[in-house]
Amino acid sequence: MAILGELGTEILIPVCGVVGIVFAVAQWFIVSKVKVTPGAASAAGGGKNGYGDYLIEEEEGLNDHNVVVKCAEIQTAISEGATSFLFTMYQYVGMFMVVFAAVIFVFLGSIEGFSTKGQPCTYSTGTCKPALYTALFSTASFLLGAITSLVSGFLGMKIATYANARTTLEARKGVGKAFITAFRSGAVMGFLLSSSGLVVLYITINVFKMYYGDDWEGLFESITGYGLGGSSMALFGRVGGGIYTKAADVGADLVGKVERNIPEDDPRNPAVIADNVGDNVGDIAGMGSDLFGSYAESSCAALVVASISSFGINHDFTAMCYPLLVSSVGIIVCLLTTLFATDFFEIKAASEIEPALKKQLIISTALMTIGVAVISWLALPAKFTIFNFGAQKDVSNWGLFFCVAVGLWAGLIIGFVTEYYTSNAYSPVQDVADSCRTGAATNVIFGLALGYKSVIIPIFAIAVSIYVSFSIAAMYGIAMAALGMLSTMATGLAIDAYGPISDNAGGIAEMAGMSHRIRERTDALDAAGNTTAAIGKGFAIGSAALVSLALFGAFVSRAGVKVVDVLSPKVFIGLIVGAMLPYWFSAMTMKSVGSAALKMVEEVRRQFNTIPGLMEGTAKPDYATCVKISTDASIREMIPPGALVMLTPLIVGTLFGVETLSGVLAGALVSGVQIAISASNTGGAWDNAKKYIEAGNSEHARSLGPKGSDCHKAAVIGDTIGDPLKDTSGPSLNILIKLMAVESLVFAPFFATYGGVLFKYI
Amino acid sequence: MAILGELGTEILIPVCGVVGIVFAVAQWFIVSKVKVTPGAASAAGGGKNGYGDYLIEEEEGLNDHNVVVKCAEIQTAISEGATSFLFTMYQYVGMFMVVFAAVIFVFLGSIEGFSTKGQPCTYSTGTCKPALYTALFSTASFLLGAITSLVSGFLGMKIATYANARTTLEARKGVGKAFITAFRSGAVMGFLLSSSGLVVLYITINVFKMYYGDDWEGLFESITGYGLGGSSMALFGRVGGGIYTKAADVGADLVGKVERNIPEDDPRNPAVIADNVGDNVGDIAGMGSDLFGSYAESSCAALVVASISSFGINHDFTAMCYPLLVSSVGIIVCLLTTLFATDFFEIKAASEIEPALKKQLIISTALMTIGVAVISWLALPAKFTIFNFGAQKDVSNWGLFFCVAVGLWAGLIIGFVTEYYTSNAYSPVQDVADSCRTGAATNVIFGLALGYKSVIIPIFAIAVSIYVSFSIAAMYGIAMAALGMLSTMATGLAIDAYGPISDNAGGIAEMAGMSHRIRERTDALDAAGNTTAAIGKGFAIGSAALVSLALFGAFVSRAGVKVVDVLSPKVFIGLIVGAMLPYWFSAMTMKSVGSAALKMVEEVRRQFNTIPGLMEGTAKPDYATCVKISTDASIREMIPPGALVMLTPLIVGTLFGVETLSGVLAGALVSGVQIAISASNTGGAWDNAKKYIEAGNSEHARSLGPKGSDCHKAAVIGDTIGDPLKDTSGPSLNILIKLMAVESLVFAPFFATYGGVLFKYI
Repeated sequence: MAILGELGTEILIPVCGVVGIVFAVAQWFIVSKVKVTPGAASAAGGGKNGYGDYLIEEEEGLNDHNVVVKCAEIQTAISEGATSFLFTMYQYVGMFMVVFAAVIFVFLGSIEGFSTKGQPCTYSTGTCKPALYTALFSTASFLLGAITSLVSGFLGMKIATYANARTTLEARKGVGKAFITAFRSGAVMGFLLSSSGLVVLYITINVFKMYYGDDWEGLFESITGYGLGGSSMALFGRVGGGIYTKAADVGADLVGKVERNIPEDDPRNPAVIADNVGDNVGDIAGMGSDLFGSYAESSCAALVVASISSFGINHDFTAMCYPLLVSSVGIIVCLLTTLFATDFFEIKAASEIEPALKKQLIISTALMTIGVAVISWLALPAKFTIFNFGAQKDVSNWGLFFCVAVGLWAGLIIGFVTEYYTSNAYSPVQDVADSCRTGAATNVIFGLALGYKSVIIPIFAIAVSIYVSFSIAAMYGIAMAALGMLSTMATGLAIDAYGPISDNAGGIAEMAGMSHRIRERTDALDAAGNTTAAIGKGFAIGSAALVSLALFGAFVSRAGVKVVDVLSPKVFIGLIVGAMLPYWFSAMTMKSVGSAALKMVEEVRRQFNTIPGLMEGTAKPDYATCVKISTDASIREMIPPGALVMLTPLIVGTLFGVETLSGVLAGALVSGVQIAISASNTGGAWDNAKKYIEAGNSEHARSLGPKGSDCHKAAVIGDTIGDPLKDTSGPSLNILIKLMAVESLVFAPFFATYGGVLFKYI
Repeated sequence: MAILGELGTEILIPVCGVVGIVFAVAQWFIVSKVKVTPGAASAAGGGKNGYGDYLIEEEEGLNDHNVVVKCAEIQTAISEGATSFLFTMYQYVGMFMVVFAAVIFVFLGSIEGFSTKGQPCTYSTGTCKPALYTALFSTASFLLGAITSLVSGFLGMKIATYANARTTLEARKGVGKAFITAFRSGAVMGFLLSSSGLVVLYITINVFKMYYGDDWEGLFESITGYGLGGSSMALFGRVGGGIYTKAADVGADLVGKVERNIPEDDPRNPAVIADNVGDNVGDIAGMGSDLFGSYAESSCAALVVASISSFGINHDFTAMCYPLLVSSVGIIVCLLTTLFATDFFEIKAASEIEPALKKQLIISTALMTIGVAVISWLALPAKFTIFNFGAQKDVSNWGLFFCVAVGLWAGLIIGFVTEYYTSNAYSPVQDVADSCRTGAATNVIFGLALGYKSVIIPIFAIAVSIYVSFSIAAMYGIAMAALGMLSTMATGLAIDAYGPISDNAGGIAEMAGMSHRIRERTDALDAAGNTTAAIGKGFAIGSAALVSLALFGAFVSRAGVKVVDVLSPKVFIGLIVGAMLPYWFSAMTMKSVGSAALKMVEEVRRQFNTIPGLMEGTAKPDYATCVKISTDASIREMIPPGALVMLTPLIVGTLFGVETLSGVLAGALVSGVQIAISASNTGGAWDNAKKYIEAGNSEHARSLGPKGSDCHKAAVIGDTIGDPLKDTSGPSLNILIKLMAVESLVFAPFFATYGGVLFKYI
């Protein structure tokens, strides 16, 4: 059938995965060459740091013993704060995992009354494994997905907190050195996460296959637990991390910048360590689990549909593994792309950073298009059939190539549109900055309008991807489009993680009292990072939309629903209530950030008022209390929104049945994606409008500034409002729409059997 | 069949309509007894004003000749500004009407190639009238609906500007007198609009029936133009009026309150007349056309479905007219309800105003429930069938009673939830006010969260109404639920119009330099009016959701679609793009308000800087230029959002066909209703949080105030941001979702014949 044989597949996937992991370790090794102990720092100054020995410029205080010690201290404080938060969170999340694993086992096991006898298959002929064992394997894959997600997030956080001080120290040698350190560290995170996700999934499939044998239906049904596990951890990562980081950030800004008029990241501010910890637990660990969840889910959605298509029916292992093969090729493509940033070219000025990062996106997309074409030709038979809500649809290998490619390029378009609306190089953000002339109110009005407007093109891009990929290969096509968008995830994550690392590096420079020039360099890194963070969020949301639609399709297929008719009242009420859920969820998360920030403000004010010498810099603030406030708030506040997301599918499915649940999923998807995009972009635009005024790089910008002017104050208010929008409620909505869909998919057999209790008895 | 015969129906409907109009005229007459000419004012002081002659208290300057003259002058200025704006708008709207009438005629006439021969009916057997004549009658009813809407809006504006100075003058005698004048004037608007809407529709049906005879399918198809006409005028009223009023309001506040520190409505502010004009063209004329549109549309939706149900098939005229009969009963019920406010009880203190208005809602709902029960028993056969997407469904008269009642009571629930979230008597608004302690940013975060949260219960109320009414009587049930919600429209509009009248009265008191006590009384009226305005918007949105679903159902029925399957990519891309449209639309309208406000700010600043003696009150500002800025901006800026709404159904229907259009309508509905509710409530909450701090009626409120404190400044920023949300983009979304649906319904025969060009050729 396909050119690539089963053996080739069995070799190619793990080899690509291992190559990715090795590459990540190699990058880590290079970064670790930058020493944060005073002795070695002077050695680094001597050009033995492994990069080659050119120094872009000589810097005052290059070998300053004190500065290096201080950087190391701050790094340790941030790392310890982040580790402590994550371990506290893991305790609660661990309890959740145990309880939810039990729920999965009981619900799914009950379908055939906990019988241990084989049952007739749902789609193919013959006997399939009993539901009880599928429940057991689903539970196991749920736990595996959850643990992989946690470990990935944790490692990402570790490398980020390992790299931030190193980036600061490298900034003494020049902006190019600092960039390369931050970017390499981001790459560690990106490659580790995408490779381990692939390898664990691959091993799980092979292990489960030993039990399931020829029952591929049951095999891939149980694998969906992997996606659920990954995504439910992402929920806590995004929501908990998001609340943590923004409570600290908003709290620190409201007292520090607004009331006390001290700069950002000033070491006198008691919330400054909490703020820096937040960047790592929110933007790094949270973002990492989010994209890992998307990756796991879209792979699972594709596999489930494939298992009841001709790939599964004919037991064509290579074709079945097509989603994993695409991801494998993606790792190699991203590896090549990374070399363009780290080895083939060299950054010499701050203005080259943003183009270099954008080039990464373009190169990876272009190379990946070729990669997908090759693997589609190698791994797929020329003609095959895909399951399409009850019927089989004829598809060709080139068709699937188009599905993956359309997702890949839609991702690039979304990325560039996001950049256009959030970078201060273009008119939208400049208009928002300009509206600060008349105060905070017009700034907010213009910012909200910008966010609303920024959804238009991404939605059209998503709509076209959906139409094209669905027309070609039904729900499998959509899952593959999602995987296409995620195939360059390693690069995307590298770019994304680069942002908070640079942000932290700037914070450390400020706190360590390094010279203004160093801070300017890290600020240049950070400004580029702000835009790339928005691009990363754009990718995350776009892929989440496709993923959840694919999961929705898989759920509907698995639940045996053939039509989801908007004209049926059961579906319509689901649709309108589903469209309401993102608002409910956002209300909770935004209010949580607001309340936690108020507590933080009180504590910071208390410290300024009661610790003598704090403002003068002669006394140290009590950082630990602020870290504790953020930790406690985020743990406590993540429970209600988490419960909303986790319980809605269970309650709706059980009480109202699969039709209403389908409506809820579709409603939440079409409504949530809009709020997520607009919230992220509004927040990003406000942040960069503020930075635009602060940087004062043009005549127009200077007319609005400088720091401390009325315009700047209005811009700071916008920035503060944008914080929870862009880093808490907006990106958490990705999880809402994906997680409800994957949960529905996992519980689909249960709902199909027992669902709709309320309508049955009324 | 029914107890009420055809003759009874033919008498009852026009009689109720005429009674409503007579009642409105009578109220107007009573209001006109308050003289705004100096001589008569002293007579009014003598107790010959027709209300009875008690004076609650004697007031300084009661017969002050100058004050009365000044009030009259200001009233004239406001009235002239409003009239001039509306006439300018009508010129553009008139051109639109002509063009769109031509489009309707050509599109609908082309269906059978402009043939003048009768054609077989779509649903019943026999020959129906040719499409060409139906096109002609549709065009005629479109123009009739448009003109009725314009006249209603214009008369509403006229009575409002006639009543505002009279309310101010009555406020000298006490808060009760002022309340009764404002409320009576609101009632004029409410009864005039609901009665004329009913009477014109009734006459149109009877006139058209002369041509159509037994072809009820064609008759009621052509009647749908009435809804389209009404709603398209509402679009321009809401969007144009909304931009006008908020450009003036935001512009006036940004310079007056924030920069110059002069009070609201200070006559030195050049934008103050424009601001007061705006209240009349936006909140009165705009709101009036909006609710008139809803009323016309839900009646048309019900009639279209009824015409292809047993009512139409059996030519049961009384049952066919059930929607009109419900509205007729509504007029009588509202008439009785009004007497409770104006004659049965008497307001003696400011604190009694809000309860009195709330009582209006409860009384009208309770009485209407009885009224609906009676008319359902009298006008409907015990058993009949309703068309349900291709099949006929058995329904009883009690079933229809439940449909109307569920809508009616859902409206009340939405009203009370809105009150809870926007009145400063409850904790949500107080929490928002409290968050001002830490500045504008937390105020905005809490306000947005409040708005998001406030959608939860209304959406559940709407979902339950939909489920119940659909289960009983399919799409007819939903149309009747919408009519149920709107049946107490006369009372709703009276309460709603009362708000801007009181607002203007306060403005006039300030501008005429009347004493602080007068201003306090009008402020008390206005504060209650703020909450009732939010309630009115809640009703408008809730009914819009039901109406547009009913229209959607009628469209789908008329276009011959039996299933709108979310799993079809054609539908799904429609759904996601439809859900995006409210964001696009909001982006346009908010940015329009922002830009127009910036222009206004520049002009106001210019006048303060260049007119010597303006701040000292020795020179008069140039009000006319500010009025012109608002007028020009609103006329110019209403075109793009208007085009978006009017062209989307035409383009989607023609290029992509009825399935995608169904998706777009459903998506816009489920997404738009959430933004509309949250935007209105967020804005209302900010406004009242500010008023809460200003009024300082509790220990807590005083701790945040007084006017001019940092907290108050933060609250003013929130209030300003809320202005375009609650008065421009939020309420305009009602129109977006309704208008796209009714337009699709009118053009359904065209789309069914020629639609989907793009998919046909690809």
